[in-house]
Amino acid sequence: MSRNTVYLDYAAATPVEPRVLAVMRPYFTDRFYNPSATYLRAVNVRKDIEAARGRVALILGSRPSEIIFTAGATEANNLVIRGVLEEYTDGNVVVSSIEHDSVLQPARLYQHKEALVSPQGIVDMDALRELIDEHTVLVSVIYANNEVGSVQPIRHIALMLEEVRYARRKAGNERPLYLHTDAAQAANYLDLHVAGLGVDFMTLNGGKIYGPKQSGILFAAARTRLKPQIVGGGQERGWRGGTENIAGIMGFTAALELAQQQRVQETVRLKGLQQLFFAIAENNIPGLAVNGPRKHRLPNNVHIMIPGQDNERLLMQLDEAGIMAAAGSACSASDEEPSHVLKALGLSDEAARSSLRFSMGRPTNEDAVRYAASTLGNIIAR
Amino acid sequence: MSRNTVYLDYAAATPVEPRVLAVMRPYFTDRFYNPSATYLRAVNVRKDIEAARGRVALILGSRPSEIIFTAGATEANNLVIRGVLEEYTDGNVVVSSIEHDSVLQPARLYQHKEALVSPQGIVDMDALRELIDEHTVLVSVIYANNEVGSVQPIRHIALMLEEVRYARRKAGNERPLYLHTDAAQAANYLDLHVAGLGVDFMTLNGGKIYGPKQSGILFAAARTRLKPQIVGGGQERGWRGGTENIAGIMGFTAALELAQQQRVQETVRLKGLQQLFFAIAENNIPGLAVNGPRKHRLPNNVHIMIPGQDNERLLMQLDEAGIMAAAGSACSASDEEPSHVLKALGLSDEAARSSLRFSMGRPTNEDAVRYAASTLGNIIAR
Repeated sequence: MSRNTVYLDYAAATPVEPRVLAVMRPYFTDRFYNPSATYLRAVNVRKDIEAARGRVALILGSRPSEIIFTAGATEANNLVIRGVLEEYTDGNVVVSSIEHDSVLQPARLYQHKEALVSPQGIVDMDALRELIDEHTVLVSVIYANNEVGSVQPIRHIALMLEEVRYARRKAGNERPLYLHTDAAQAANYLDLHVAGLGVDFMTLNGGKIYGPKQSGILFAAARTRLKPQIVGGGQERGWRGGTENIAGIMGFTAALELAQQQRVQETVRLKGLQQLFFAIAENNIPGLAVNGPRKHRLPNNVHIMIPGQDNERLLMQLDEAGIMAAAGSACSASDEEPSHVLKALGLSDEAARSSLRFSMGRPTNEDAVRYAASTLGNIIAR
Repeated sequence: MSRNTVYLDYAAATPVEPRVLAVMRPYFTDRFYNPSATYLRAVNVRKDIEAARGRVALILGSRPSEIIFTAGATEANNLVIRGVLEEYTDGNVVVSSIEHDSVLQPARLYQHKEALVSPQGIVDMDALRELIDEHTVLVSVIYANNEVGSVQPIRHIALMLEEVRYARRKAGNERPLYLHTDAAQAANYLDLHVAGLGVDFMTLNGGKIYGPKQSGILFAAARTRLKPQIVGGGQERGWRGGTENIAGIMGFTAALELAQQQRVQETVRLKGLQQLFFAIAENNIPGLAVNGPRKHRLPNNVHIMIPGQDNERLLMQLDEAGIMAAAGSACSASDEEPSHVLKALGLSDEAARSSLRFSMGRPTNEDAVRYAASTLGNIIAR
């Protein structure tokens, strides 16, 4: 392993923050009781879970009863897409074309449409509106894209949907029209108040916010209806069966609180590093292009296209130099297809195969950025 | 809290074994990488997961590719029931009437039948066979019942199904007939070789074998077909999307190995304590009846009916004396209905409400059993 090790794939996975692990620790051994049991120690564990639910609700500005703890974002996304479409069996779902696979794949099992995005990776509001027909029951737009970091105008989409709902009511169409946002990548940097955003459903993920993997929530507004997908002992008020993953719930909650406490200062700090990365890379690498928007972009995301280069080879050379980065989403890194997100932005297959993602995190500092950006320049200049 | 604390609810939850937690520890912080990423450190995490899959397969006598890591037994049970019934949409499922709710509830969403059991809680083979018709695609019978500990003749059921398959082939019926067993409670004490048992699917759960909660597997034989339920980034070869819970997978695997290493000696040890518990209780408590079988019973399970007593009140008094026990399954402890398992054994609602479960575990010793059984006697004699 190289002496200089620079991890720049925080969008793929974050380590568990030591403070979060310390919160989780007792729930593996001392406070391991089944929260549905009746003795005092189990009742106390149940109280811890309900307190955690309240703390998550406080951050979202929701009621505690609107928080469903899940085993991660993929389960939460499946629950909302499948749950709504199985509740309203003659309905359809409209998603953006740059959703994560955990939204896109379940949506494709039902009547669905995919809304185009701009070359910067921002959802086209007119295109989105045009796809919504009288049978549409759900619109799902990712809050911040996991590949290029584009931040979507969720609040504007919510206002547009409010107009559609108004028109529907006037026309006597009683069908609901829900808005879901997958905020898995957003929670480190963006505001999560569900009323401000105007969403009916929101997905969060512990594994991207320095909490444990396969922890997360689906926020489901009390006014909504959906069919549970994992049924059994009636946990999570019937929305999600299975003995509660107490350590995961407590870890997720602590991680979310820390992320939201730090989000403003981390945004400022990482924006500076992001500009630095872009500046060094653009100076050293002829023809480099930035994928995704300059504004309305997650502060930790650097996604670039380097003409004539093969990203698989670049990643190997970077890895040899101790730099860990990504080409597209790690979740579908194993398949050979070029990223559906980059294609949706209008990149050719060749341009997509010449693109790299560097995603920064809490430990990333100026030295790391300078080392990564200059090493990349050196590799290409060779 | 009482000075003497005796936990006797190991069927509801087990603490994570310190050795298991030590195995998990590095995967939260140092080896946290997304296993789908391409750099060396992530590839090494991927190798750890695949090595774990191989170790689980070795215990089951299966191929590694037949092991699907899930977020616990409830998800695994939902995956097999829903996955098979959605793959064969004109099929039906036959389950025993004493399945865990995580099998029973999904089964009830499809064409299904419930097979009666004997007063000892053993599946009636003739009743089971009679329910299987030409549309049956799946039979699901719990290996060891979570409430009364009755161990089912899985191998005999498999042989009976083999006869049905033979008759079907002769009649030109090409429909598959799969056997699933939920072995969540069995893994501490019973043999898990899938070929010997003759099962096509098997569920295991980390949270009952001194591993982490919401970890587990579904064994799905290569010859089977089922529809994935949680889709996304294609993890687990498409059977179960979501970034892998590495710590959970490694912890589950270590816990399963430890459980299987100890199962024979733990069975002998706990059988002795079980007999002791029954003997003291029967001596001290007039009219006491044992629920479930005397033979073919998990060695850690003590389930008794005490005429004229209310189990809720008894549990409170036991809790005050430091003894943690259960009435029925913790998973549905919150609802007020008498246990469906005890009703299936023929107990009246009143008898069910007078019944208690004590489930022993690794730390349970003779002192604990003597204290619990004599305290129970004293409470009733008051």
